[in-house]
Amino acid sequence: MTAAKKERVVILGSGWAGYAFARTLDPAKYERIIVSPRSYFVFTPLLASTAVGTLEFRTTLESVRRLGNVRFYQGWADDIDFDRKIVRVEENQADELSTRTILPPPTPTPKDSQGNVKLEDIPVEPPQKNKGPIDELQYDKLVVAVGAYSQTFGIEGVRQHANFLRDIGDARRIRLRVLSLFEQCTSHSMSDETRRKLLHFAIVGGGPTGVEYAAELHDLIHEDLAKLYPALIQHVNITVYDISPKILPMFDQALASYAMNVFKRQKISVKTNHSIQRIAQDTTTGGLRLKIKEYGDEEVGAGIVVWSTGLMQNPLVDKLIRKVVPGQATEGQKQGDFHLEKDHKTGGIIVDECLRARLVPTASEPFPSSETTPTETSPDQQPSQILPSVFVIGDCAVISSQPDLPKTAQVASQEAAYLAKALNKDANLSAAQPFKFRNLGTMTYLGNWKAIHQSSADHLKGWLAWVLWRTAYLTRSMSIKNKMLLPVYWFVSYVFGRDISRF
Amino acid sequence: MTAAKKERVVILGSGWAGYAFARTLDPAKYERIIVSPRSYFVFTPLLASTAVGTLEFRTTLESVRRLGNVRFYQGWADDIDFDRKIVRVEENQADELSTRTILPPPTPTPKDSQGNVKLEDIPVEPPQKNKGPIDELQYDKLVVAVGAYSQTFGIEGVRQHANFLRDIGDARRIRLRVLSLFEQCTSHSMSDETRRKLLHFAIVGGGPTGVEYAAELHDLIHEDLAKLYPALIQHVNITVYDISPKILPMFDQALASYAMNVFKRQKISVKTNHSIQRIAQDTTTGGLRLKIKEYGDEEVGAGIVVWSTGLMQNPLVDKLIRKVVPGQATEGQKQGDFHLEKDHKTGGIIVDECLRARLVPTASEPFPSSETTPTETSPDQQPSQILPSVFVIGDCAVISSQPDLPKTAQVASQEAAYLAKALNKDANLSAAQPFKFRNLGTMTYLGNWKAIHQSSADHLKGWLAWVLWRTAYLTRSMSIKNKMLLPVYWFVSYVFGRDISRF
Repeated sequence: MTAAKKERVVILGSGWAGYAFARTLDPAKYERIIVSPRSYFVFTPLLASTAVGTLEFRTTLESVRRLGNVRFYQGWADDIDFDRKIVRVEENQADELSTRTILPPPTPTPKDSQGNVKLEDIPVEPPQKNKGPIDELQYDKLVVAVGAYSQTFGIEGVRQHANFLRDIGDARRIRLRVLSLFEQCTSHSMSDETRRKLLHFAIVGGGPTGVEYAAELHDLIHEDLAKLYPALIQHVNITVYDISPKILPMFDQALASYAMNVFKRQKISVKTNHSIQRIAQDTTTGGLRLKIKEYGDEEVGAGIVVWSTGLMQNPLVDKLIRKVVPGQATEGQKQGDFHLEKDHKTGGIIVDECLRARLVPTASEPFPSSETTPTETSPDQQPSQILPSVFVIGDCAVISSQPDLPKTAQVASQEAAYLAKALNKDANLSAAQPFKFRNLGTMTYLGNWKAIHQSSADHLKGWLAWVLWRTAYLTRSMSIKNKMLLPVYWFVSYVFGRDISRF
Repeated sequence: MTAAKKERVVILGSGWAGYAFARTLDPAKYERIIVSPRSYFVFTPLLASTAVGTLEFRTTLESVRRLGNVRFYQGWADDIDFDRKIVRVEENQADELSTRTILPPPTPTPKDSQGNVKLEDIPVEPPQKNKGPIDELQYDKLVVAVGAYSQTFGIEGVRQHANFLRDIGDARRIRLRVLSLFEQCTSHSMSDETRRKLLHFAIVGGGPTGVEYAAELHDLIHEDLAKLYPALIQHVNITVYDISPKILPMFDQALASYAMNVFKRQKISVKTNHSIQRIAQDTTTGGLRLKIKEYGDEEVGAGIVVWSTGLMQNPLVDKLIRKVVPGQATEGQKQGDFHLEKDHKTGGIIVDECLRARLVPTASEPFPSSETTPTETSPDQQPSQILPSVFVIGDCAVISSQPDLPKTAQVASQEAAYLAKALNKDANLSAAQPFKFRNLGTMTYLGNWKAIHQSSADHLKGWLAWVLWRTAYLTRSMSIKNKMLLPVYWFVSYVFGRDISRF
């Protein structure tokens, strides 16, 4: 048998889904091409640690170039021609190829009659300012793993004044801001009232990212900054705001209560049922002012707002769903036009149990507007078609049989590993077993060497959970290099303190 | 004997002179107050290493707050009232308390009739944009150690487009820019000509800082980036420009020639007798264009220009020299007004052998303009007065008996240690021995594990000099913490490569 030309797999995205997929796919069988605005993968769970100087930024990164034998296009997938199997790639011309969170351009967020944000009506616009040159890339198989954007819910001032925590540039900026605030507050001419405002650290979102950042910040302040700025500690406040009635909803009540107690002892305030309405500059302090619905007109001062709540679909996903693709006639249905099936709850793309993009017939109107009820051809009543050679994984995929899987790194990386292994076995997935999510447990660091861990097998809290938390990060980090660097830097921080230089 | 109230020593500056002085001065005998726009000392010789990711930024920093028992005012000394012994301090309100090189505001650089820059006519303006609140600080003794600013020689575009390398924020920016340039040059749509322009790294100034940065950059590119971007290495060029006929003038001919040979083998171009006339943005490449006198109208493309040539006096020094201070009548001279004695070659303040500021009588005009010849009352002909309790050390001091000591870290730190020890012994310096500079040798790293070292005792080159170079940095770095961190990070870079994450 002669060696056939390798199939070319184009992977859109270098996050938990895209990077893990590219890493597992067999280069002996496939030509791998990654398209992503970032040339690296970010190990997001450790970002909070880097944002306080416990770890160096490098420990959270894996360069796609180190995968070896991978072609990489730095840019955004701008459009896809499913017929000709071509991806249009717009090169990333961003300033210094910025490593900070990129938001789609500001547009009025569509809301329904109750004032709720309608996730499904996302503007179809590319996220960057400068139009770069366009490349056209042919694919044999396409893996859409473009992830999701941070959601600002259209709240005034979030885009301009809040800090996100999804990339290392974000972590660096947050770090610099926090350290600068302490420096500023040493000013001999500053009033204690201003100090209290500036040393209020507001975190919006009570999920694991927000909670871990609050915890790490607490440790930084009480273990390191307290030595340098003893007089300022009395003015420090950390608050976690969440719109819902509880934080850490993925944990059971006992663990969530434990977390609340740990936070209480550490004097981290948790304000549930609080909704931010506006973030604005406070010109009198050089900090920010938060308008919170529950407080009426009285605004809360803060030195920094870290925003870690909500995701929105990548505009590309909506663009793809609106595309008409010719499908094949099936039993009981004549030849006609189809489009990718949309999950109306999240705006994601529905995939079958092997993570292949599903198609539904296009109704009389070219695209079902969000006002109409979901199409009647429900997958369980009638077998839908799939779009051959197009797979969707990670945050933008919704598995028809398991629509409620959370949008987490764990789900994304399991989907990626499943698909790559299945394709390594058989390019047609002819005998592939359906994807099955295996819950490995959830963990959150709470500060002061304490954590919580919950899995189907056990519930742990306190120091032992903290050990497990660190061990898990060690074993799950991608490269051997980072597995070895992590303990070195943990040791350095433990012995010499965190890095509190402002750069 | 009852304990007298401690004398208060106000130290202006936290660099090699100010920080080392504060560190050595006995807190049991003196109250120490540091005034500086930066709350830390920078170990400048290691900045080039941090600018390429060999070392973490923290290894070059020592916080003044860690000195213990020191009061610190973050700001600029704006003015001094020598009569009332008061320093006016303007608080640093700079953005994020920036850690990058601050330049005085742009003003036309005064030139003499031959077009040479006249160092003595420096504009008397504070260097920052925003006026901060003013504090007034009383002193018993004052140590002026404000150092010098980087000199742009009024060359067009230097201020806007060149990168300096004097603070950790500079190092971070240079690092990010270099790494981003490599990323940008992977663009599939870029021409090789543009790549050659962007991957040209121009260093202006052939002193130790410029040469070491060129060497470290060479190592970064050939040891680390070559693995990630093998196709780009052919387009890389590093050039060191210097206006004078040779680089490294402080080394003897044999060592300087050795350095030139090492650079030649490493393909680092050295262009002596070249003078930069303009730096401008190149909108076609996104890089820079250099106009060089020797090349006429043909401009040279570059991705980055690192500027490490020339110093200028801090505007405060000139302001102080222009101040009239009442002096005492001396033999052969009646009571009258005096001012600080100026060194007309460098614009610095002349001090006696115990580093006390010297006074000269003010002539009929309030201040000798730079058009007049230096005052006739030369120190060697007639004993000058000193301004009691005011000391000047470091780059802004010129010792009357040793006016040709170079403006180096070594000189500054020896002056600082001398003065602090002398004051520890006797607040009046009544029996103090004159300051004597002890040349401990000069070293420069050349890349590829080679260095040169020159002292009165020996001349070394190659690998052994490199060992000495690293050892010297270990022993000379200020804190035990950094002495221990340096080998850790050197080890990490050696084993795992340099940190090439863009943040």
